[in-house]
Amino acid sequence: MKKNYFLFILCMSYGVLSIAQQVPQVNQERLEKTLFTLANYGVKENGETNRVAFSDADLAGRAYIISLMQISGLEVSVDYAGNIIGKKVGKDPDLKPIGFGSHIDMVPNGGNYDGCVGSLAAIEVIRTLDEAGIQTEHPLEIFIFSNEEGGVMGSRALVGELNEDALTVVNSTGFSMREGINRLGGNADRVWEVEREEGSLAAFLELHIEQGGILDREQIDIGVVEGIVGIKWWDVNIKGFANHAGTTPMALRKDALISAAKFVLAINKVIKSYEGNQVGTVGKIEAFPGAPNVIPGEVNLSLEIRDLSSEKIKKLFEDIKTQAQVIEEEMETPFTFTPIDATSAPALTDKKIQELIAGAAEEMGLSTKQMQSGAGHDAQDMARITPVGMIFVPSEGGISHSPKEYTSPTDMANGANVLLRTILKLDQSWY
Amino acid sequence: MKKNYFLFILCMSYGVLSIAQQVPQVNQERLEKTLFTLANYGVKENGETNRVAFSDADLAGRAYIISLMQISGLEVSVDYAGNIIGKKVGKDPDLKPIGFGSHIDMVPNGGNYDGCVGSLAAIEVIRTLDEAGIQTEHPLEIFIFSNEEGGVMGSRALVGELNEDALTVVNSTGFSMREGINRLGGNADRVWEVEREEGSLAAFLELHIEQGGILDREQIDIGVVEGIVGIKWWDVNIKGFANHAGTTPMALRKDALISAAKFVLAINKVIKSYEGNQVGTVGKIEAFPGAPNVIPGEVNLSLEIRDLSSEKIKKLFEDIKTQAQVIEEEMETPFTFTPIDATSAPALTDKKIQELIAGAAEEMGLSTKQMQSGAGHDAQDMARITPVGMIFVPSEGGISHSPKEYTSPTDMANGANVLLRTILKLDQSWY
Repeated sequence: MKKNYFLFILCMSYGVLSIAQQVPQVNQERLEKTLFTLANYGVKENGETNRVAFSDADLAGRAYIISLMQISGLEVSVDYAGNIIGKKVGKDPDLKPIGFGSHIDMVPNGGNYDGCVGSLAAIEVIRTLDEAGIQTEHPLEIFIFSNEEGGVMGSRALVGELNEDALTVVNSTGFSMREGINRLGGNADRVWEVEREEGSLAAFLELHIEQGGILDREQIDIGVVEGIVGIKWWDVNIKGFANHAGTTPMALRKDALISAAKFVLAINKVIKSYEGNQVGTVGKIEAFPGAPNVIPGEVNLSLEIRDLSSEKIKKLFEDIKTQAQVIEEEMETPFTFTPIDATSAPALTDKKIQELIAGAAEEMGLSTKQMQSGAGHDAQDMARITPVGMIFVPSEGGISHSPKEYTSPTDMANGANVLLRTILKLDQSWY
Repeated sequence: MKKNYFLFILCMSYGVLSIAQQVPQVNQERLEKTLFTLANYGVKENGETNRVAFSDADLAGRAYIISLMQISGLEVSVDYAGNIIGKKVGKDPDLKPIGFGSHIDMVPNGGNYDGCVGSLAAIEVIRTLDEAGIQTEHPLEIFIFSNEEGGVMGSRALVGELNEDALTVVNSTGFSMREGINRLGGNADRVWEVEREEGSLAAFLELHIEQGGILDREQIDIGVVEGIVGIKWWDVNIKGFANHAGTTPMALRKDALISAAKFVLAINKVIKSYEGNQVGTVGKIEAFPGAPNVIPGEVNLSLEIRDLSSEKIKKLFEDIKTQAQVIEEEMETPFTFTPIDATSAPALTDKKIQELIAGAAEEMGLSTKQMQSGAGHDAQDMARITPVGMIFVPSEGGISHSPKEYTSPTDMANGANVLLRTILKLDQSWY
């Protein structure tokens, strides 16, 4: 097998695709079985799931992951941030490790596929390589990040971006991040020490289910992620004049909700007026005083804009503000915009890794689509220290963060095989 | 004086207006003084007011009203619903009483003019007639209705429309209506006995401040109320599909808030598309789940329509529903309308009494405007059992239900004089 592998690499270098099929294939059944086993950790009697970070179910699920890694011959450790790290030596000790992985924690009543597909596929890739007798040139390093759903805690710590204040945040388990890190076998006092230097990894890959339903709807096998969108939030306040809804004639009203309605539609129009995948959302709205018989004197609403480009987000916001000004003048209802701190910068994936992923999929006869990730992922943090690639597989109906999540065994295996091939390509490339 | 009065009536019958000036005028200073005295009951140290029905301040204010009525020689009683009733005999015991009055209770931190102007003007009219030695043919009956602000309790009981469930409603004083009625000297167990028969009064008149700011803006002295608008409420539910605001492309959203925004503007457009004084308001709105990063899957909002004509309200609502259907089909977001029970039917005032009021104002050289009342009043209930008339006086800036309410002494006196003249005209007319 080792011989075939080198032949393959050789052929690939010359673009001979026909022999590419000789790359080993992951064991689809085993991948599915490990996913179902992991799913057992945190199922409640009523069918809801509960494997929020720091919960007993999280601890049990992590123990299972560690045992799987150990079976696969990896050198396993838990870092001070609670990240589970599995290492496999490469032939060339001077090369930087190729990293890959995801997370296994869930939102409350979340899904069994989310970060688990990428986590278990990472382990399956190691087992497949081992069974095929393949040792890569680069060391390989699997990361199962801690507490992704509670603010990408583990990956943020790894890139030195975890905020000290964040340690006081308590999640639905009742544990603070500080307590939680210690529960996971980390050490909250030394969490700062896990920071990796920029350039310390050759690359980082993450396989994840696609949460927008685009792949499922378009019947595409593999999403090649171009980047993870940046997110900007604002609180918007609109001031009108509260008045008696019975006695105030229509023409004399300063109804803040009429202005808000115009504004909500204006946002939608601005966002849709540009080519691209940008999204803009008003998810929250409240009118004051909020009685059926009082003209709203004030409205508070949220504004969120996401895009791969910070410049585009800025441009969209400027356009939206211009529209607000028009409404403000017409309606005599002043608008105030307050930026909210919970925002994140866009993270682009590496162009060459995108090509490797697309190439790997094409070799297998899989259809691909270049796409952005509208959701945040650990890879977004990892992009601060290393070139990253992300592989998406379809999630039925785009359902996510729900026990109804479903990705077919074939799609999971496709994703794992593309991950495996991309690792092998990276191993032989410029990284 | 008595002689002059009969001469006046005689002349009036023949349309001789010149002698009309001989009708006695109310004592503007005394009216103002009693208003300020009443205002002292329920002033807090911070300048806020508090004379909510059933409060100690309400009890004290009522005691002051009763003393004023007694000074004026009225036969005073408190009925089982807590209404204060002052009677003055007429020359002809076979004639039905002419009723007039208003209320002295307030909303929390309300104004000193609201129902007080009409209440104290009613007493001032009695005093003026007495001082002029005028006894009317009809008995006169002053009503100071209990708990107007908490659901026109007293007048509703008087016309047999008080709901038994209403007795359990607790207001900001912490007392239920049942407890409150007993505190006022009524008897909650026998409150049903206060019901008056239809036709038991010759007419009912109410003087009140105009809460829409129309008279003040247009510099008009007297509003001749054509009717008190009916109010219809609906709860409106709009169902979209909640989804991840980052991963769901704009074109694939079923955003219930976009539909709600279109609907709010459609309501505004429909209401404004007809001639007339109808008003329509969305005062309350909520999006679910209500997070900045989740596309609203559901919106609840309130819809209120007010107009003098039930048919017009019906027509407006039909138009609004048609617009909702258009949005529903375009956006694939179903709308549901649930009528709310807190509605009231329009109450038209008596045409002939409108003419008497306008005539009285014109005799005094006062400008008048025919108008509707967008707010509810005790007169609305009284219209169920007797012809009613309503006289409006300007309130500065249309401010109401606020300590900043202000009606000038001249305007108060104008209103009281028009009330007095209208009573005298009614006394000599077909009622």
